[in-house]
Amino acid sequence: MKLDVIINALGQVREQKPLVVNITNYVVMNNTANALLAVGASPIMAHSKEEMAEMMSFSGALVINIGTLDSVWIPRMLFAVERANANKKPVILDPVGCGASTLRTETSRDIARLADSLIIRGNASEIMALAGENAQTKGVDAQDSSSDAIVAARFLVSEYGANVVISGETDHIVTADDQITLSNGDAIMPYVTGMGCTLSALTGAFAAAGDHTGLAAAAVMGVAGEIAAEKSQGPGSFQLQLTDGLYNLTDDELAKRLKIA
Amino acid sequence: MKLDVIINALGQVREQKPLVVNITNYVVMNNTANALLAVGASPIMAHSKEEMAEMMSFSGALVINIGTLDSVWIPRMLFAVERANANKKPVILDPVGCGASTLRTETSRDIARLADSLIIRGNASEIMALAGENAQTKGVDAQDSSSDAIVAARFLVSEYGANVVISGETDHIVTADDQITLSNGDAIMPYVTGMGCTLSALTGAFAAAGDHTGLAAAAVMGVAGEIAAEKSQGPGSFQLQLTDGLYNLTDDELAKRLKIA
Amino acid sequence: MKLDVIINALGQVREQKPLVVNITNYVVMNNTANALLAVGASPIMAHSKEEMAEMMSFSGALVINIGTLDSVWIPRMLFAVERANANKKPVILDPVGCGASTLRTETSRDIARLADSLIIRGNASEIMALAGENAQTKGVDAQDSSSDAIVAARFLVSEYGANVVISGETDHIVTADDQITLSNGDAIMPYVTGMGCTLSALTGAFAAAGDHTGLAAAAVMGVAGEIAAEKSQGPGSFQLQLTDGLYNLTDDELAKRLKIA
Repeated sequence: MKLDVIINALGQVREQKPLVVNITNYVVMNNTANALLAVGASPIMAHSKEEMAEMMSFSGALVINIGTLDSVWIPRMLFAVERANANKKPVILDPVGCGASTLRTETSRDIARLADSLIIRGNASEIMALAGENAQTKGVDAQDSSSDAIVAARFLVSEYGANVVISGETDHIVTADDQITLSNGDAIMPYVTGMGCTLSALTGAFAAAGDHTGLAAAAVMGVAGEIAAEKSQGPGSFQLQLTDGLYNLTDDELAKRLKIA
Repeated sequence: MKLDVIINALGQVREQKPLVVNITNYVVMNNTANALLAVGASPIMAHSKEEMAEMMSFSGALVINIGTLDSVWIPRMLFAVERANANKKPVILDPVGCGASTLRTETSRDIARLADSLIIRGNASEIMALAGENAQTKGVDAQDSSSDAIVAARFLVSEYGANVVISGETDHIVTADDQITLSNGDAIMPYVTGMGCTLSALTGAFAAAGDHTGLAAAAVMGVAGEIAAEKSQGPGSFQLQLTDGLYNLTDDELAKRLKIA
Repeated sequence: MKLDVIINALGQVREQKPLVVNITNYVVMNNTANALLAVGASPIMAHSKEEMAEMMSFSGALVINIGTLDSVWIPRMLFAVERANANKKPVILDPVGCGASTLRTETSRDIARLADSLIIRGNASEIMALAGENAQTKGVDAQDSSSDAIVAARFLVSEYGANVVISGETDHIVTADDQITLSNGDAIMPYVTGMGCTLSALTGAFAAAGDHTGLAAAAVMGVAGEIAAEKSQGPGSFQLQLTDGLYNLTDDELAKRLKIA
């Protein structure tokens, strides 16, 4: 049962306290480090090529987020992926703004191509841009707004051997064997910067602790977000409540609230 | 009537959800992105020259903030201003620390000189440093502490064709045709980092949605700040309440609280 | 009496509002700037070599934190230390992650060697890594988990002429003449990113205002942290409450709560 998998994964993160290396954007570094700590993991925010081989040798996962992409950082990102590969550690790619510039689209694809063990976490637009023309739907599939993104995700699964998390009002976890839908979260979340980035960081923690699908992180984030929204008066208080919510989340709350299909 | 202009401008931001490109300092990236989201706009925090032409082609304004100025970033800032000019988009300059170093003063002037459509938002000291010797008062004008800054702002208006917002205990909006005073806000605000930077970011959102004077952003920030202060126990809770306050601000509150002259 | 020294130091910070230059990591720039403001100091977050001579000429202390160390920044850090020396200003070194990579260990030692007036603030692991083999205990000293770190701190005191603050569940302030233990703080603090970095920043403010031992900053941080924890439901609300707590801290609370030995 999926719920047991998720509850077990959260327990593993809290028990193992995995080290997660994050090469992420300036905007969310603080929030994502705090989210990782709150869920029980140990964030390392490191960006220097000179120390990346050492960092990846004792860490459990690598999260690469291109939110404030700088051409100077691209070779560092690729080198970090190589070191993750060499250490057989999973890579989580957050292709922020993929499609908004050629630099972002091409860098995302370079990273996806290079990573041996890959989870991609993006919103529908980013996932479609990453897949590009290869995954254009023929129209007939498009029964709802997420159909195109799911088709794109399936392409990414086959092209890169990746597992894909499409986050949004509904989250879709797409793997070679499975497709799961999560309907937690809250409408306030798009008004808070870095919610997707936070999910990507958490995905790194759960991957380091053994869940390579992205499912457990998305479930924890969605349920914690739902609880946080109930205690918030706006996006400022939501951010605080989300961190508290990740820290305080119980198995019972997960079981009671999880909307999975 | 100014109040109607302000209320209309806020409605436009919430309706249009304008994209605002921010090349800003590391300290405030998270806060300013969250303030832009809370007020209804869409922040893009991007810094790479390689993608700036694309970013400015579909965005509504460019905010340049030199708070953590790095010589590597200066050519990127100037290139972004050129792209804003080419797309006829307004540029908001926040000359953080202007006067504290030659690098900051000269960079601020280079940006001001280059921008075709410019709003400058700074505190009194920064505005005076930006104007420099050209705007020194003769002493007789100096009836209150803001007189010198207003003289400096008038110089900047004529020299750069800019509109100028001097923020502080009292805000002054200085344009070629008008001079407006706002007396909202709260004494806690100087104890929270990035309040000026947040106003500059909001000024970008309102400029993208049609208000090129800087008035509406300053009014919204001042009133939201006043409401936030009433709900706060210190600068930590103020930051949260300000974000919530920008999100929840109503036309009625604006009308009831606005202190304008 | 130590309490009087601490209370006096807090009063000096609030009265003098010292300027503190911070070359710090991306993750904590916002928090540390806010902590400095909340305690009454004036943060400058500046990183350009081109302006560092000017910045150090009118500032009271330099805080160097290697949390997101980049080889591009190392020469800037060393130049800033030279300018601090030239202006006879204290340097606070936060050797984040010292021992986790050769780059961090060597850079920390280069900075420590260069600074004329130095306070080092780290956790036990960082302090031991910075001291390295030179400070290995012989086993017999190791009566509790902090013994090794205190031996390492004593080595750093003699090697670099530094004062050393080891922060953790118990804080140890080690100087040439004294060794003080503080037992304030709360178990939630390791779940919030940048708590050590915040203490380092505060140490800069207190050093600029006259306390070169690191004691007053650690005492203020510990007591404010303890108060904040009582008002928190998790690490998100703790961060907010800490900022409020630094702002609102009274001499009476300090006197009532300080656990010093």
